[in-house]
Amino acid sequence: MKLEELGEFGFIDRLAGQAKARTGVVLGIGDDAAILAPAAGKVTLATSDMLVEGVHFDLALSDPRTLGRKSLAVNLSDLAAMGAQPRHALLSLAIPPALPVEFLDAFTSGFLALADEFQVALVGGDTCASRGGLVISVTALGEQCPGLVVRRSTARVGDLVLVTGTLGDSALGLELLRQGVRSGRSVERHLDPLPRVAAGIRLAEAGLANAMIDVSDGLLADLCHVLDLSGVGARLDLSRLPLSAECRHHLATGGNDPLVLPLAGGEDYELLFTAAPEREAVIRSVLADCGVQVTVIGEIIAGAGVSMTDLAGNPYFPARLGYNHFGITRDAASSRLPEVT
Amino acid sequence: MKLEELGEFGFIDRLAGQAKARTGVVLGIGDDAAILAPAAGKVTLATSDMLVEGVHFDLALSDPRTLGRKSLAVNLSDLAAMGAQPRHALLSLAIPPALPVEFLDAFTSGFLALADEFQVALVGGDTCASRGGLVISVTALGEQCPGLVVRRSTARVGDLVLVTGTLGDSALGLELLRQGVRSGRSVERHLDPLPRVAAGIRLAEAGLANAMIDVSDGLLADLCHVLDLSGVGARLDLSRLPLSAECRHHLATGGNDPLVLPLAGGEDYELLFTAAPEREAVIRSVLADCGVQVTVIGEIIAGAGVSMTDLAGNPYFPARLGYNHFGITRDAASSRLPEVT
Repeated sequence: MKLEELGEFGFIDRLAGQAKARTGVVLGIGDDAAILAPAAGKVTLATSDMLVEGVHFDLALSDPRTLGRKSLAVNLSDLAAMGAQPRHALLSLAIPPALPVEFLDAFTSGFLALADEFQVALVGGDTCASRGGLVISVTALGEQCPGLVVRRSTARVGDLVLVTGTLGDSALGLELLRQGVRSGRSVERHLDPLPRVAAGIRLAEAGLANAMIDVSDGLLADLCHVLDLSGVGARLDLSRLPLSAECRHHLATGGNDPLVLPLAGGEDYELLFTAAPEREAVIRSVLADCGVQVTVIGEIIAGAGVSMTDLAGNPYFPARLGYNHFGITRDAASSRLPEVT
Repeated sequence: MKLEELGEFGFIDRLAGQAKARTGVVLGIGDDAAILAPAAGKVTLATSDMLVEGVHFDLALSDPRTLGRKSLAVNLSDLAAMGAQPRHALLSLAIPPALPVEFLDAFTSGFLALADEFQVALVGGDTCASRGGLVISVTALGEQCPGLVVRRSTARVGDLVLVTGTLGDSALGLELLRQGVRSGRSVERHLDPLPRVAAGIRLAEAGLANAMIDVSDGLLADLCHVLDLSGVGARLDLSRLPLSAECRHHLATGGNDPLVLPLAGGEDYELLFTAAPEREAVIRSVLADCGVQVTVIGEIIAGAGVSMTDLAGNPYFPARLGYNHFGITRDAASSRLPEVT
């Protein structure tokens, strides 16, 4: 069926019919606005992310169901990085009229499946025609007690720098996809990343993370956001970077700078956070409960920028910093990286 | 300056620098998510609207500043239709890389100027590259006491059907723009609509509106949303439709069906609501306080659909129903309109 036959309101009716009743939803899809009841004494966390065909995804390389999951996942990852419980989402789509309804059904079923996994309610959004490719815009709302929200700006000198999971898999997955590979762990991590929701909430609610961000632009770029806002620097030991077996194999056989993928590849959707050294054991225990591995990769120091030592213990200077839409001029010009302190 | 020179983070820094401190904002732009403090005992209203180049706007016909204003205005209109006080907004942009920074600066200055007029805080969003045209996605959050929010689904048999302002100006303005006209009241109403925020809040807080919606798709299409959800019908007297002098002149000299513009033109962003007949005098007084005219155009009756009499008192059958992205199949097939009850 083509979208013209179903119509805008037919598509919205289908979506509304699949949305489930959830905590805090007084009225979902179907009016001018959703009515949401915030939990007493909690703050609301709000974040938006846009995914654009030809920029963030290629319809030849991703199936609609995982694309639907990823559209929500990248937003939940932002809420996880604040330590927030995700609650509600709004989904807006600019849709090329020729896109089959079957594509949209698969997309929304993926979106709603991930929403179910995290008890998130789809409460609104917009659908309209696109003259270009598919554009997906999601807003996610979460909640947390005000004193427990973790910011980027509160890293402290002496903190450890920690990261969950492994780095570089998503960027490797994208490389492999472009080479024609269609399966494997790295490809899956690129197409269908799982946000670290439980880990973020546990770290926040136990007061374990001093500062936190999710790794979306790339480890170094995201670490620099934390450092800039906190007014501190960091020293990283790149021999400690957590790498999957697949990524490690690729780095051993790969090109010029094997560290570019884990340092600047982006879209890992892991949590990068800082914590007092004496909390390390508790952090390991709490994250093990969530089934999430964690690695100490460095420490926060006075000053600014990042100094790094490579796998041989020598000072390391990165070839690129991370993803920046519209070019990298600002980052390159500010040359925060590397600044050996 | 081109966007490549400023970079994504440079643009976000510019936006963050212009955002003002507002009620309920604990932390605005600059972290993974904004932190918002909901007012105690109130519900949150959430709505999203997308504006797509070549579909909702034509860069040759609209200047960036008014486009920025309109992007927020259409969302505030949705909040107004629930009777909510607007508080926060998130703005996501998919930007063609060749778009000059001056365009974006003008766009955001317009967006922020309208935000200032309504004490709305810009608290987040996303910016990324577009491979097609400019795509604008806005989420607006508002608040109201739970018992005062006005829905679409609660119109009652015997209610009057009322509408604020005048109808058809925006559609006429678009026609005139396409003919080369660049000024005048209708053109202004199309490019720079003013949401009926104060009127919506006053109607809700005084308990005067039983059901309400904003006129975005067109009077008939939006009225049908109210009727369908409320399980009622309506009788409209088209001789009462509130028309501006410019629109009246156009209808007198125009084409085949002069009522198409006010009935189905859309984008009026007026409030369409139903109310008990005995409240009419209070409604007129309250809306006069807001400087807003109001007109009774019909009544809610038992049954379904709309019956209409034209300016001569004869039954009227509309040529089209309103704007529906991806075609009008569903509305045409359900033939809710006209159904003489």
